[in-house]
Amino acid sequence: MVPKGKLIVVGGAVDKGSFTEKNDVKGVQHNFNFFERGILKRIVTESRLGSDSRIEVITTASQIPEEVGLEYEKAFHYLGAMNLGILGIKTREEANGKEANDRLATADIVMFTGGDQLRLTSILGGTTFHRSLLLKYAAEPVVIAGTSAGAAACSHNMIYQGSATEALLKGEVKITSGLGFIDHVIIDTHFVHRGRIGRLFQAVVGNPMLLGIGLGEDTGLLITDSKKMEALGSGLVILVDGRFINDTNLTEIELGEPISIEHLVVHVMAKGSLYDLATHKLIVHKADRTLLLKNLPPEE
Amino acid sequence: MVPKGKLIVVGGAVDKGSFTEKNDVKGVQHNFNFFERGILKRIVTESRLGSDSRIEVITTASQIPEEVGLEYEKAFHYLGAMNLGILGIKTREEANGKEANDRLATADIVMFTGGDQLRLTSILGGTTFHRSLLLKYAAEPVVIAGTSAGAAACSHNMIYQGSATEALLKGEVKITSGLGFIDHVIIDTHFVHRGRIGRLFQAVVGNPMLLGIGLGEDTGLLITDSKKMEALGSGLVILVDGRFINDTNLTEIELGEPISIEHLVVHVMAKGSLYDLATHKLIVHKADRTLLLKNLPPEE
Repeated sequence: MVPKGKLIVVGGAVDKGSFTEKNDVKGVQHNFNFFERGILKRIVTESRLGSDSRIEVITTASQIPEEVGLEYEKAFHYLGAMNLGILGIKTREEANGKEANDRLATADIVMFTGGDQLRLTSILGGTTFHRSLLLKYAAEPVVIAGTSAGAAACSHNMIYQGSATEALLKGEVKITSGLGFIDHVIIDTHFVHRGRIGRLFQAVVGNPMLLGIGLGEDTGLLITDSKKMEALGSGLVILVDGRFINDTNLTEIELGEPISIEHLVVHVMAKGSLYDLATHKLIVHKADRTLLLKNLPPEE
Repeated sequence: MVPKGKLIVVGGAVDKGSFTEKNDVKGVQHNFNFFERGILKRIVTESRLGSDSRIEVITTASQIPEEVGLEYEKAFHYLGAMNLGILGIKTREEANGKEANDRLATADIVMFTGGDQLRLTSILGGTTFHRSLLLKYAAEPVVIAGTSAGAAACSHNMIYQGSATEALLKGEVKITSGLGFIDHVIIDTHFVHRGRIGRLFQAVVGNPMLLGIGLGEDTGLLITDSKKMEALGSGLVILVDGRFINDTNLTEIELGEPISIEHLVVHVMAKGSLYDLATHKLIVHKADRTLLLKNLPPEE
């Protein structure tokens, strides 16, 4: 079934503020630079009601939710989107409660902040809030957006840990079940600056049915009809398609040993390029975009 | 013509000591950790005379050649290789002079340190030293090794600049002619920690005839017969094969605009895996190695 909602996943900011793993309160101030504001603006304009949309910012992933929430509030206000609430769900009880679900019912944009994606799945997974959001995404033109941890949690399969410095060692990349707004992909964020190409490769070689999506900082994807993907922002989106892997030593090596992989197919998406998850076709030329999208996105 | 020499390219150390762009004297102390020592040992054992080999360490790339030279001396001495000289060629005059060329004539191992690869090509390129080393590599079983800048300079085409943070913007990656010990490849180093996947992609999309080689820290390649490549060390070797690129916007965009690329083929080599530049075949299973190498390399 084709969902009526849209999904926007963002790789995080170059300044590490949106990724609060270090509880970096100071960093939050620098979070919303020009480029990420560009993506935030797109989140607003993709919503049916534009800047009149009701926005709920879900700070569940963050360990400094108040600070992060305030910064999102400032950024959306800067864009003229004033109808915004911070929904700081901190427990499963709150996620099953009336307030969260009443507010979800009237939201046009649901924005998941950065932080720890395991907080998102362990606190929200299977709650009334989560199930209602899945239903809303299927039936209504809601925009679900996530940055950093909030992006990683959007797919059925979610990377939640895996050191870049540990290279491509079997078992180093930890995967669990995400919030499930999109299937057949696995999303990694902060892709360029944290050198995470190896961990995305490992996620894909473990199950080549998944398309690996690496989102650079200040970079995102707009996903419509759960298959049409448009690159947003200043950086790189890397797609890793493992369906044509010829060979790997994955199953013969022990945990902790390095993985070899023959023949991954990789695409690089710059802003404005389009990829169709159904046909696996990348459109790089502006003139060809109408092949994939009936209505050209507005030039920024 | 198949050269009689062997080539060992190394991605640099995790600690930044070997890459002296920051004139980081303190960092040099931490340069030779366990893993890089493992590769240095392999450099020694690949030489016909083993630890009796005459080693010349070329510190030309470095702006702190004395410090870097001393550290290499310590490391090779630690491995029992005592017959070592530091050849700190600093000018083209020295590279054309009698001492450098006499010492080159009797060397079994020529080791290029890190630093700035443009110093290597601009000081050594076309000199008697450079031409003699090319002849020696063709005719004698010399081992030429290079780490970081020393590795980048080994191919005919050499990346000498290009910011990882600038993503994949047309013209950001600067390429010039290298020392030319191996053709049809382009080598990038410090691949994982400096997030350089984008710059290697750009080098390859500009001329897909070149195989892009991304060397992680503490990771290297042994290249024999100028085509058989074996991965060494603890990290990742990424190979980027652009021959099957379907489409790119490279020629229609302006300098500074982001590049999209459809269908790069990428291989991941872990320690012990083998790749044949002639057949483009990757061997990941230990049992299959004899397909490519007549004599199995010794297990470390």
